[in-house]
Amino acid sequence: MPAVTIQLIAEDPNTLARAGLLTTPHGEVPTPAFMPVGTQATVKGVTVDQLKQLGASMILGNTYHLGLRPGHELIRSLGGLHRFSGWDGPILTDSGGFQIFSLAQLTKITEHGATFKSHIDGRAIELTPEHSIDIQESLGSDVAMVLDHVIALPNEPAVIEDAMQRSIRWAKRCLEHATREDQARFAIVQGGLDPELRRQCAQEMSKEDFEGFAIGGLSVGEPPAEMYKTIEATVPYLPKAKPRYLMGVGTPIDLVEAIARGVDMFDCVMPTRNGRNALAFTATGAMKLRNAKFREDARPLEEDCPCPACRHSRAYLRHLFVVGEMLGPILLSIHNLTFYQRLVREARNHIQAGTYSTFLDQQRRIWTPVTQDS
Amino acid sequence: MPAVTIQLIAEDPNTLARAGLLTTPHGEVPTPAFMPVGTQATVKGVTVDQLKQLGASMILGNTYHLGLRPGHELIRSLGGLHRFSGWDGPILTDSGGFQIFSLAQLTKITEHGATFKSHIDGRAIELTPEHSIDIQESLGSDVAMVLDHVIALPNEPAVIEDAMQRSIRWAKRCLEHATREDQARFAIVQGGLDPELRRQCAQEMSKEDFEGFAIGGLSVGEPPAEMYKTIEATVPYLPKAKPRYLMGVGTPIDLVEAIARGVDMFDCVMPTRNGRNALAFTATGAMKLRNAKFREDARPLEEDCPCPACRHSRAYLRHLFVVGEMLGPILLSIHNLTFYQRLVREARNHIQAGTYSTFLDQQRRIWTPVTQDS
Ligand SMILES: [Zn+2]
Ligand SMILES: [Zn+2]
Repeated sequence: MPAVTIQLIAEDPNTLARAGLLTTPHGEVPTPAFMPVGTQATVKGVTVDQLKQLGASMILGNTYHLGLRPGHELIRSLGGLHRFSGWDGPILTDSGGFQIFSLAQLTKITEHGATFKSHIDGRAIELTPEHSIDIQESLGSDVAMVLDHVIALPNEPAVIEDAMQRSIRWAKRCLEHATREDQARFAIVQGGLDPELRRQCAQEMSKEDFEGFAIGGLSVGEPPAEMYKTIEATVPYLPKAKPRYLMGVGTPIDLVEAIARGVDMFDCVMPTRNGRNALAFTATGAMKLRNAKFREDARPLEEDCPCPACRHSRAYLRHLFVVGEMLGPILLSIHNLTFYQRLVREARNHIQAGTYSTFLDQQRRIWTPVTQDS
Repeated sequence: MPAVTIQLIAEDPNTLARAGLLTTPHGEVPTPAFMPVGTQATVKGVTVDQLKQLGASMILGNTYHLGLRPGHELIRSLGGLHRFSGWDGPILTDSGGFQIFSLAQLTKITEHGATFKSHIDGRAIELTPEHSIDIQESLGSDVAMVLDHVIALPNEPAVIEDAMQRSIRWAKRCLEHATREDQARFAIVQGGLDPELRRQCAQEMSKEDFEGFAIGGLSVGEPPAEMYKTIEATVPYLPKAKPRYLMGVGTPIDLVEAIARGVDMFDCVMPTRNGRNALAFTATGAMKLRNAKFREDARPLEEDCPCPACRHSRAYLRHLFVVGEMLGPILLSIHNLTFYQRLVREARNHIQAGTYSTFLDQQRRIWTPVTQDS
């Protein structure tokens, strides 16, 4: 009996978009789903109550960060990540592969695992596929991700293939090592922007008994069109009856485009990171609230948004950022997360109504590319 | 018809403590009352919903800060401070006297007013009693404070008396200048730590038609015993039928001691400022959450506290501060404000039960002096 299953509820007739219901040990998740990122056992600036209220049903935690601080043994001894964070809904934990690549000073990748220096104190640490699973089993997330070998793009074809093959071998080691029956293991498909490598990786991974499949190594600076092509090259080779998760993506239009290509799940820091930087997502585009034109703007961010930020005027929200009050980042994080939840819910409604391609066209007209600023 | 009135509901038989109900244009406030400080039109890190939920009934805004940014004309044009901040309950605004003294680079005090340089951009600004009232009328608070001449303590007796006399003349000018019938004016009694000056100032102010009386110029570094004595020297000369407000005070025991001496209202940054610095107030004393002893502590901050922080373990709250997550300051601010609201509610219950002196003894045993850290 798998810990996590997806039941497909509707498929759009004109795209690969699909609506489903993910069942996990900690509850159900309607898909397409967007998971707010709770790197350090908290979604930055947002309480658990606010997360529920804004419609999040599943969140993401980070093996790398939580393994370093406060340490996974501590979290296990305190009852696991759900109890520790106060979030009693479904949690997915990533494996640490991406953080080692992006944050730590990487010293060596061998077949055995990755050796790196902690970004906190420079301490040398080794993370193997088995160790990543051990940490995630201590955390007790609903979904554990396999450890993958993430590389920079663009890169040499040989390097990309080597990392992809290693990611397959590591994924199998994760599966062999895992023991928890109340935790699902998701594979991560790598292969850079090469459709042939992606196909090969997806097919290899699909032979194994994973309960879900992620597309990794994207949204690392490549043009959106390249990312969409890579998704197209991967999805057809993933099992239809299992959830598909695009890691670390992305802008609103990225989500909409990826859903059209058959993706079910997303996570990204964009709504919270941009919110902290005074950028709001709205149904008519992005809005930079520090802009002087909002100084006297009495209108709410969005007329029909039910979030606590939208009970205030744009002038008030601008004021909070201008004077450096922390309520500004808090309210815009909540608004942006609300926006993302409403976006995937709207996508779901269109899939169920069979009108996803109309929705896709609308969204393409709204979103000129938004760059992921930090 | 005064804009703000207090109805006395109970008086403790053994102390001067009293319980009342303040009626304002924006609602009722049970007293003794603690007002969270919303300097820049936000209580730092706390949403309006959270403020209501934690039991606050009245908040404080700052004339000095709001007059500089975003400017009182803008707030007026956006419908006043209530609509601007989203807080639809009672608001008291201070006059700017204390901020000019503590934040700005003061250039000159004349009989006409204060000239100072903005702490934001160094711009020279003049604040007169009339201008302070104009700003507060633009803000539309329920209670406006008169502009007072605040000085450092200790100081020369002649300087203290001169500032006290000027504060009386300025208070009268505020009263004469005021026009809004839906806004109350509270006087501020000055006079340093000299009981004779305090008595004289209280008596002079009481002759005028103020709707409430504040005790100002305290909690500026003097020992608590001196502050309590000064309250004792002032309260008997204030009209019994009007609210009494001790400005900028203080620690939990300060509140309890001042209530015993007949004070009805308080404001202070302690709960939020300390909360941001990982210090929690609890019924058994203060708790520094960065302390390593909380690393594995699975207990909530306080067993019976209904606030969102207390649904987490001390270990989790410590983790948030150790890794620098903003949810730490947010949750501890909410907890400390909840604590202060519960404290004044408990005080009120004891006054109504006629057991305030027992409560006072209990509290004295709990609170070794807590220093106001920043
Ligand atoms: Zn909103
Ligand atoms: Zn609490």
